Amino acid sequence: MNIDGIPTRTLRARPAQNCIDIIDQTRLPHALHWARVATLEEAAHAIRAMQVRGAPLIGATAAYGLAIALEFEASDHRLREAAALLRSTRPTAVNLHWALARMENALQPLAPAVRHHAAWQEAQAIADEDVAQNAAIGQHGLALWRDLIVADGQTLNVMTHCNAGWLATVDRGTALAPVYAAHDAGVPVHVWVSETRPRNQGLLTAWELEQHGVPHTLIADNAAGLLLRQGEIDAVIVGADRIAANGDVANKVGTYLKALACADNGIPFYVAAPRSTIDFACREGADIPIEERDGDEFRLVHGLDSRGVPSALRQAPAGADVANPAFDVTPAWLVRAIISERGTCPASRDGLLALYPEENHG
Amino acid sequence: MNIDGIPTRTLRARPAQNCIDIIDQTRLPHALHWARVATLEEAAHAIRAMQVRGAPLIGATAAYGLAIALEFEASDHRLREAAALLRSTRPTAVNLHWALARMENALQPLAPAVRHHAAWQEAQAIADEDVAQNAAIGQHGLALWRDLIVADGQTLNVMTHCNAGWLATVDRGTALAPVYAAHDAGVPVHVWVSETRPRNQGLLTAWELEQHGVPHTLIADNAAGLLLRQGEIDAVIVGADRIAANGDVANKVGTYLKALACADNGIPFYVAAPRSTIDFACREGADIPIEERDGDEFRLVHGLDSRGVPSALRQAPAGADVANPAFDVTPAWLVRAIISERGTCPASRDGLLALYPEENHG
Repeated sequence: MNIDGIPTRTLRARPAQNCIDIIDQTRLPHALHWARVATLEEAAHAIRAMQVRGAPLIGATAAYGLAIALEFEASDHRLREAAALLRSTRPTAVNLHWALARMENALQPLAPAVRHHAAWQEAQAIADEDVAQNAAIGQHGLALWRDLIVADGQTLNVMTHCNAGWLATVDRGTALAPVYAAHDAGVPVHVWVSETRPRNQGLLTAWELEQHGVPHTLIADNAAGLLLRQGEIDAVIVGADRIAANGDVANKVGTYLKALACADNGIPFYVAAPRSTIDFACREGADIPIEERDGDEFRLVHGLDSRGVPSALRQAPAGADVANPAFDVTPAWLVRAIISERGTCPASRDGLLALYPEENHG
Repeated sequence: MNIDGIPTRTLRARPAQNCIDIIDQTRLPHALHWARVATLEEAAHAIRAMQVRGAPLIGATAAYGLAIALEFEASDHRLREAAALLRSTRPTAVNLHWALARMENALQPLAPAVRHHAAWQEAQAIADEDVAQNAAIGQHGLALWRDLIVADGQTLNVMTHCNAGWLATVDRGTALAPVYAAHDAGVPVHVWVSETRPRNQGLLTAWELEQHGVPHTLIADNAAGLLLRQGEIDAVIVGADRIAANGDVANKVGTYLKALACADNGIPFYVAAPRSTIDFACREGADIPIEERDGDEFRLVHGLDSRGVPSALRQAPAGADVANPAFDVTPAWLVRAIISERGTCPASRDGLLALYPEENHG
């Protein structure tokens, strides 16, 4: 990824100072602000308050947060308590659980004295693997794009939802990795970006596409159906917060509606996610917990005032009854394929196990 | 309808002063402001700027606007020019064309000297018929609700999109008429109200439901699919801006996505609209012009600032590429039934002609 032309990751590890620097995404797209996370509590807050967001980035941040937590005490008790606090921050994205389980499994056998150092190494490995896996997703997705291109020089029109770009990962993104791969390979690509109310992660997607010079058009979430029906879109691609063992996909609320419109119009609907997003222990989508977030995410709206200062306005009264689920579940039958770092597979138990045979325990 | 407990209509005719008073809906839900429309140009502006909105109310306002235009000159030329200006304000809602055609048909045979007075009478008839038709829609819809209620005292959960309540009509509403009929008949009813980005007409719906004491919950448009999938909703009901002869329905953008989610979950999707919304001359949905509105409707967000003053913020840069279609088309097969003032019918050519046999010209 590049910001203002300078290569960077979304998360900068500073093991010598026992801290990380993150992009405070609650201030994007209006201000680029790096925030320092130097304590366990700051890491938990960063995830809960969505300073970092996106399933893979949440996982990596939690891993580093655990490493940060072990500086002065790395007992079994401290390890367990710190992991529990981080695990409690958000319920739906399974990458959080996956990263913390991986950290605990790596650290528990070790003597407490070496755990802090080992934790930093393991967190770094998780972050590095995220980048490598997303690069692989990009190439697998690019191969799918090439099948959709029927004429030389044709612009590929891709729609996405929420932000599953590099801001949602350590780098490169999941759903946007194939978009960047196409752009970098000289394949003309244009992205339809839905606003993604109530948190407007679509504005983050537009901002990061802008940084890379990828043409894009913003739309209200409501407009997705019309555009898909009018034949404006070649494919829809989204990330995921959890993929159940049967291929059902939990992702940002509104994803399911786009998948339905794809099915109704014969347009492929792809889900791009690394292994850490697949929950083989979760039988089906109905078993995935759906986070209900504060109604003020809906009641308030955000932007720049006339002086260019980030501000909020109240669009609905404080007492207005609001429901604010953050995710929905797209049933497997609506998903044309899942794209992971290992390749492409049907959204089904058999499809997922073909990519990950080591998960087949009977 | 009642505002602060006082019965009123959304449009107050003042023929002695050759003007009407309208509720300026661009200031709702934050301020209730009556605006005077005293010239043809003010009527056209009120429709174009969405001070009045909702297909039936647009039709009635245009009719009064034409009457206002004829005060000093009622020649064939003036009549034709005034109608043309009003017709050009918005392309999708056919009620506008219907009301103006009705006015012209009534006035053209008359001597110019009596046209002004006759125009006021015809506009008044259009407004009165709107109220009576919506009352009938309410009763037909209530009969459908009764079929959905399986247990005594069960709360009926209805979802709607945009605002098709009394604010969208002269009184009573179309989609909300059956909701008010149920509430008034003592049937417990709760309404799920989607925000309806980018113009947030859902906030108008919440405001008018609040005036009548009807329980309701606001949601982001994106949340509709999840709620329908989770079995929270008994029925979805919307209004329409134009119904094609084959039963395809143009309505506020995002309607199609809700209809898809209804079909996927076996939930009835109803469209409530009077005769004036049905365009028998329009073969199918693909022939309906879809209005593309200013991208600033998306780029700016609105609400009250910390001092309670209505304000706007910029959420996307002035140069951001935005597409902002205002309507979409829901294909007839997704519509369980159309509810008009004459009763309920399947969304099909045969269904519509069974209700309106006088439209069967071969």
